[in-house]
Amino acid sequence: MTQSLKAKEGKITQEIKTVAEAEQFDVQKLKELIADGKVVIPANPNHKNLKPCGIGKDLKIKINANIGTSPEDFEIEKELQKLEVCEKYGADAIMDLSIGGAPSSPCKGGDLDKFRQLILEKTSLPVGTVPIYQAFAESGGYIDFNIDTFLKVLQKHAEDGVDFVTIHSGITQASISLIEKRVTGVASRGGSFLVKWMKHHNQENPLLVHFDKILDVLLEYDVTISLGDGLRPGSLHDAGDEAQMAELKKLGELVLVSREKGVQAMVEGPGHVPFDQIPEQIRIAKEVCHGAPFYVLGPLVTDIAAGYDHIAGAIGGTLAAQCGADFLCYLTPAEHLRLPTLEDVREGIIASKIAAHAADIARKIPKVRERDDEMSRARKALDWSKQHSLCLDPEKFKKYRGEAKNKSDACSMCGDWCAMKDL
Amino acid sequence: MTQSLKAKEGKITQEIKTVAEAEQFDVQKLKELIADGKVVIPANPNHKNLKPCGIGKDLKIKINANIGTSPEDFEIEKELQKLEVCEKYGADAIMDLSIGGAPSSPCKGGDLDKFRQLILEKTSLPVGTVPIYQAFAESGGYIDFNIDTFLKVLQKHAEDGVDFVTIHSGITQASISLIEKRVTGVASRGGSFLVKWMKHHNQENPLLVHFDKILDVLLEYDVTISLGDGLRPGSLHDAGDEAQMAELKKLGELVLVSREKGVQAMVEGPGHVPFDQIPEQIRIAKEVCHGAPFYVLGPLVTDIAAGYDHIAGAIGGTLAAQCGADFLCYLTPAEHLRLPTLEDVREGIIASKIAAHAADIARKIPKVRERDDEMSRARKALDWSKQHSLCLDPEKFKKYRGEAKNKSDACSMCGDWCAMKDL
Repeated sequence: MTQSLKAKEGKITQEIKTVAEAEQFDVQKLKELIADGKVVIPANPNHKNLKPCGIGKDLKIKINANIGTSPEDFEIEKELQKLEVCEKYGADAIMDLSIGGAPSSPCKGGDLDKFRQLILEKTSLPVGTVPIYQAFAESGGYIDFNIDTFLKVLQKHAEDGVDFVTIHSGITQASISLIEKRVTGVASRGGSFLVKWMKHHNQENPLLVHFDKILDVLLEYDVTISLGDGLRPGSLHDAGDEAQMAELKKLGELVLVSREKGVQAMVEGPGHVPFDQIPEQIRIAKEVCHGAPFYVLGPLVTDIAAGYDHIAGAIGGTLAAQCGADFLCYLTPAEHLRLPTLEDVREGIIASKIAAHAADIARKIPKVRERDDEMSRARKALDWSKQHSLCLDPEKFKKYRGEAKNKSDACSMCGDWCAMKDL
Repeated sequence: MTQSLKAKEGKITQEIKTVAEAEQFDVQKLKELIADGKVVIPANPNHKNLKPCGIGKDLKIKINANIGTSPEDFEIEKELQKLEVCEKYGADAIMDLSIGGAPSSPCKGGDLDKFRQLILEKTSLPVGTVPIYQAFAESGGYIDFNIDTFLKVLQKHAEDGVDFVTIHSGITQASISLIEKRVTGVASRGGSFLVKWMKHHNQENPLLVHFDKILDVLLEYDVTISLGDGLRPGSLHDAGDEAQMAELKKLGELVLVSREKGVQAMVEGPGHVPFDQIPEQIRIAKEVCHGAPFYVLGPLVTDIAAGYDHIAGAIGGTLAAQCGADFLCYLTPAEHLRLPTLEDVREGIIASKIAAHAADIARKIPKVRERDDEMSRARKALDWSKQHSLCLDPEKFKKYRGEAKNKSDACSMCGDWCAMKDL
């Protein structure tokens, strides 16, 4: 029984109670939002130490941080350190995007199963995965991929306790034909595998054809489906094009199919989107997807910010969240350049937290601005210890303040000329 | 004769031509915007090597970077290195905010005149200053400050070739009485000096009383006035309050007085503003200030981002610029903590450039997105050398790419699994 099915029966689960308390949100209203599919609580009962977290309408904006190995960088220990950084700096969820080895050499440099299990054991945060990565790795590349391998991998992830999974069921042969006009073709890793398979075999998307079988697995373990946008725009040029919109329409249909079965569903969105197009994109996505929680990657408001994509993404993310997106996937300064380091992960999380918090303030979520007001009172009082405890990154605060030549009780920007003094 | 007076007479100056070419903007229309005060070109004829830059309606968003000594950190050499960073990473203007010494020990640690002259000699960027800092320093504190000292300092700045000056003439005894309800009182350094003086002497703001004398100096050297918001909100709590709005109204009146005299005028704005209040604040500011170019500091969309205020400011700045702000003052990661380092300056400039560029794209400024499209084509082609030349910070790009374990022609995030390959 999933959270959604229980809520439909009028039951208030322990998870619903916990989320309502954490959000200071009316528990009956929360239950209804979950029953309606407007809020999800990704909570696989097999994830034993999970602290449940709600994502969706009227709740605080949540942020996700991606970790995981790549074929060129696969130190599991380092990825586990990243997990610690994620927890320390306040990610609400993490995704293990490990691929670990080239398709020709599956799982090189790391046992994907073992790594996933380690993460689930260690963290109380909801954990998401993209099972198609492992399915392709185990198939030794895209050509020999088949749905049975996928379902077997999915089953393993679900049994292990994964709380949400990205499934790219919205790509169709019809939508593939629409990517020709694009500058950046397919920007999604999972999407690109599927498109290659579909083109090679000239068959329909197996994740769409066998969507029911996928839902059967998810239903059994209450794994939340995150309907992936395999055709998300990878550049401003491609934003909002026919391919993106065709896939979104299909994802909207699949939201209803998932809900009908009792599987909790959210939908993934772009990507790269010009700032002025964000409000309309979010409005359409929410409408087409029947109010399902919307999970965006950025969106990036320029393509030229390599090295600073966490900033370009925080700008787009704030506006998207104000307009109705519910869940922000972080971007790090390393995006488009390399696998992120620990420091990149920290920078990415803080940038996303700024976006989420700014949007929560803009959405007038009750009490959310109290921390800002307290910070401002501490700033006015030149109470550095209190400011330290209230800011998003106390370590950077301490480092910066420590490095300064502070001779007065103010900061080295103005010294005794500090405007906050006296007035 | 100022640019504005010449434009009113129908003259197309060399500066107007240069700006029109740089912006690929119709020169007649630009002349009219300058005549109407909707665009300014801060260009003091005594700033010999100046490359003129236009700020205002329908032009690209410009960014300003602050440099300058503080009483606790006054290595002139370091500030000159910051100037180089500003030029290298594409600031459109710089402000020398040097205070250099505590009020009790004027100009300690550096000759403010000499420093300003060095900057003006070295840079082709428009240079702004806040003459009241030096006036207070030379007065040995706020109590003995008087308008004659101020006018003498202002005259020196103008003679030296300063292109724009912040003048806090909008504070009045009436508006001071409105700050009692605030959390952060007066957040502007210049504003705080004046308010202290006004309270101590119980007299009206001398920069308002003697506004005509100030304009006389500015008119002679075509120094653009940047009407400072001494009562700008220093916290989300104080945003949009009566004190801010009372001062804004006064600044709007002073725009007309300045224009009447032929002095080019722009207006400074906040500060700290919740994301949802930004559109309305900009709309009101533009209306109350008769369409004068609007120069914002951030605005910061949260108070808790110390160490990351360049990000909180870039979020607010993008929305402000989309809504009509013309000029973004950068914030660095050091804001509220210490005088910025070279690295902080670089981070601050890039964050502001992302905001300005994203807003230009959103405003559909012709050709501005071409660089993004070219970057995306290079990204698709895995052309790393071209991406390097097109991104905002080629050095960080190179460092990040260089540090990665790149074994394929893609990046270490996905290696051979790169979605950009093949499709």
